[in-house]
Amino acid sequence: MASLYVKSTGPNVRLPRARRPDRAGAVGISGSILLRRRSGGSGRVRCGLIEPDGGKLVELVAPAGPEREAIRREAAPAGGLPRIKLSQIDLEWLHVLSEGWASPLRGFMKEAEFLQTLHFNCLRMADGSVVNMSVPIVLAIDDAQKRVIEGRDRVVLVDADEKPVAILKDIEIYKHNKEERIARTWGTTAPGLPYVENAIVNAGNWLIGGELEVIEPIKYNDGLDQYRISPADLRAEFTRRNADAVFAFQLRNPVHNGHALLMTDTRKRLLEMGYKNPILLLHPLGGYTKADDVPLSWRMKQHEKVLEEGVLNPETTVVAIFPSPMHYAGPTEVQWHAKSRINAGANFYIVGRDPAGMSHPTEKRDLYDADHGKKVLSMAPGLERLNILPFKVAAYDKTQNKMAFFDPSRPQDFLFISGTKMRNLAKNKENPPDGFMCRGGWKVLVEYYDGLAPQEGSKLRESVPAY
Amino acid sequence: MASLYVKSTGPNVRLPRARRPDRAGAVGISGSILLRRRSGGSGRVRCGLIEPDGGKLVELVAPAGPEREAIRREAAPAGGLPRIKLSQIDLEWLHVLSEGWASPLRGFMKEAEFLQTLHFNCLRMADGSVVNMSVPIVLAIDDAQKRVIEGRDRVVLVDADEKPVAILKDIEIYKHNKEERIARTWGTTAPGLPYVENAIVNAGNWLIGGELEVIEPIKYNDGLDQYRISPADLRAEFTRRNADAVFAFQLRNPVHNGHALLMTDTRKRLLEMGYKNPILLLHPLGGYTKADDVPLSWRMKQHEKVLEEGVLNPETTVVAIFPSPMHYAGPTEVQWHAKSRINAGANFYIVGRDPAGMSHPTEKRDLYDADHGKKVLSMAPGLERLNILPFKVAAYDKTQNKMAFFDPSRPQDFLFISGTKMRNLAKNKENPPDGFMCRGGWKVLVEYYDGLAPQEGSKLRESVPAY
Repeated sequence: MASLYVKSTGPNVRLPRARRPDRAGAVGISGSILLRRRSGGSGRVRCGLIEPDGGKLVELVAPAGPEREAIRREAAPAGGLPRIKLSQIDLEWLHVLSEGWASPLRGFMKEAEFLQTLHFNCLRMADGSVVNMSVPIVLAIDDAQKRVIEGRDRVVLVDADEKPVAILKDIEIYKHNKEERIARTWGTTAPGLPYVENAIVNAGNWLIGGELEVIEPIKYNDGLDQYRISPADLRAEFTRRNADAVFAFQLRNPVHNGHALLMTDTRKRLLEMGYKNPILLLHPLGGYTKADDVPLSWRMKQHEKVLEEGVLNPETTVVAIFPSPMHYAGPTEVQWHAKSRINAGANFYIVGRDPAGMSHPTEKRDLYDADHGKKVLSMAPGLERLNILPFKVAAYDKTQNKMAFFDPSRPQDFLFISGTKMRNLAKNKENPPDGFMCRGGWKVLVEYYDGLAPQEGSKLRESVPAY
Repeated sequence: MASLYVKSTGPNVRLPRARRPDRAGAVGISGSILLRRRSGGSGRVRCGLIEPDGGKLVELVAPAGPEREAIRREAAPAGGLPRIKLSQIDLEWLHVLSEGWASPLRGFMKEAEFLQTLHFNCLRMADGSVVNMSVPIVLAIDDAQKRVIEGRDRVVLVDADEKPVAILKDIEIYKHNKEERIARTWGTTAPGLPYVENAIVNAGNWLIGGELEVIEPIKYNDGLDQYRISPADLRAEFTRRNADAVFAFQLRNPVHNGHALLMTDTRKRLLEMGYKNPILLLHPLGGYTKADDVPLSWRMKQHEKVLEEGVLNPETTVVAIFPSPMHYAGPTEVQWHAKSRINAGANFYIVGRDPAGMSHPTEKRDLYDADHGKKVLSMAPGLERLNILPFKVAAYDKTQNKMAFFDPSRPQDFLFISGTKMRNLAKNKENPPDGFMCRGGWKVLVEYYDGLAPQEGSKLRESVPAY
């Protein structure tokens, strides 16, 4: 299960000077344990964490110094390379790639990777082994851009302010069949899928793949960069804490006490299994989410309260932001959510009901079968090493006035509070039953909905539970 | 590559009494080499053919005798089991399953197999190995049927005449999400996909999986049953011929001299590689095809002429019918076409341009990228053992008056005759250029189109080449 992880500098990987992670590198914020992100990595560490996909964590940010400056010079307008302006979602994917969440990918997908992702949800490596890869990580360009780029072997990627972010080299341009991409990723082509509307419908008809050289760590300057901890730094932190098991909890919603119960119960079960120090990675998704999800900054405030008020134990919890955008692609996407956490050192993954699911955009039903995510995850090629922990159903136990695991022998005692219901309560400034969520966390939610313009608030619609 | 294949009677496989295949079992028809189908199999043979998927060829037809009679009695109305009437396409799939083309599948898919097929195009076996499986082989039932069947553990499957064909046991009923099935299998949900319109749109909202006990070999009594040779019998024939390589050619169109050139050239290449006796499996698809494809009976007549006139060498060719229905699902389906031929003993597979492709049903373009089939096939999990031979492009060489491999240095000398053009010539009783197709074969085509009502003929539309 957990195998020896030795991080070494290979010929193709640029790593900064070896640096031993130490306690001084970690800072506590608001009572929770949050790491300060250290640009560029953690150096040479030895630990018992699960091996990254492909055997070595990919890190694509050039080390500070002459090498970074050389790339910066090449990427400057004077370098004469063609330029592609990245959308916010493109930049988020570049961030994901740059830190190795998608290891062993070393850049935006070329066609061979794109096709394997669409058809098999996995990539075959040169040695015949297989790694999971279920969502296309691709960069679209339009016909005019293609004409400019064709014949060149590298391009500069720039952000919204035209600032160079990376060089994409050894490029390949291939057709962007949007219909096929959407159908095979989402299992539907119905109009109204949030990611599709935002990132695909108006994207170019070509995809450009290649290897990335990222100039410097990606920052958003939104006050949350300190929570954006790279897989290398997370691994260093787990090692520093002598974690012998890491269990990841992906979420894009506020944490209520049912979640907390599940997480503390999971740690208990791992201890019973013989692990000495299981560490929880509480890992809110930080990239693109749909309009009616609670924005990242508010969720982070809420999570802070949860740790501040001791609902989760800061000693055994690491809170960090997962920089990926959200597809809402259910069973296909949950594999990505799990695979990327392997790369961050997690060997246990908690999977809920209808993970990454949403309502069907045009029909009155959930888009995915609520059990398919869990089932598909347990069968997914390349995820055999990961231990899947199915979510136990928690609900509000009226006899105990707290969240508890649902007991089917006395269903009348339990109250199910859906995400929709929770949001409606918060919008109307009503309180949920005592013990549903810590007071500070609830207050954050009420504040958030209070600040929403009414017309926005009234559009809220989501039938999936709040995890 | 080719591994030792030892067929043995396992505890879960019913096999007839061992019988050694011999020359007397094979008959020549119309000068071509065609095997008479021997019900139930070939007994215990030893040969160097590629191993079937899962290690053992699945055969689900009960052996003649007391066992068959016991199943027949249980399946009779007096047995009191619920009944499901099979459509023609259902029956074709049952035929496919009964003979082990889909080994290691032992019946219509349960949900775990269905989900793995949709998401991964492969199935993980108990020992961790992986076999390819790209198209769902499922049986749909409606709400009323589900109500009748629920709580039972087996059902009888009957044909259009209410005659029992098989028992499906250890059943599982699960949701038939048609939209998701279509999107993930075809990469589109556009209306007008032939298989979808025929077999899915009006099918029930539930799927029923389980293990099959097939009462007797499936027969169609259409004069072509003798060409429907099971994988076991094909393996016996390849062994009898001392084949050390078997190369399969899947087709659903008439054979022209370009195809023939490709096949004879492939044999030459295999001989050059050191094989002593490569055998061609010329393997027309015999199940459901769309309305504007040439029907099976006419294609078989045409193929007979091709062998009769010596365009292909009967000594090194086996012609047989592949009983599968056609999905027209391009890169997804070509994997099924290849995988099933492994089970019949083929270790080489010839793949063409746009295999199993067709026009987009609602847009003016081909549904699939013409190169994706070949690419996806070469990367498909579970097909690593199969040698993929890409189709070389043949065209009519006006300087030689024959079909030849296209020479890009003198494109002006070549004439491309598409499937559409070929059909239009035949419809108009015109002759193609000399050397395009053997005379007898062409005559069959002209006869076929001559017999079509004009309104049918005028509907013909297909942009894919004739292979």
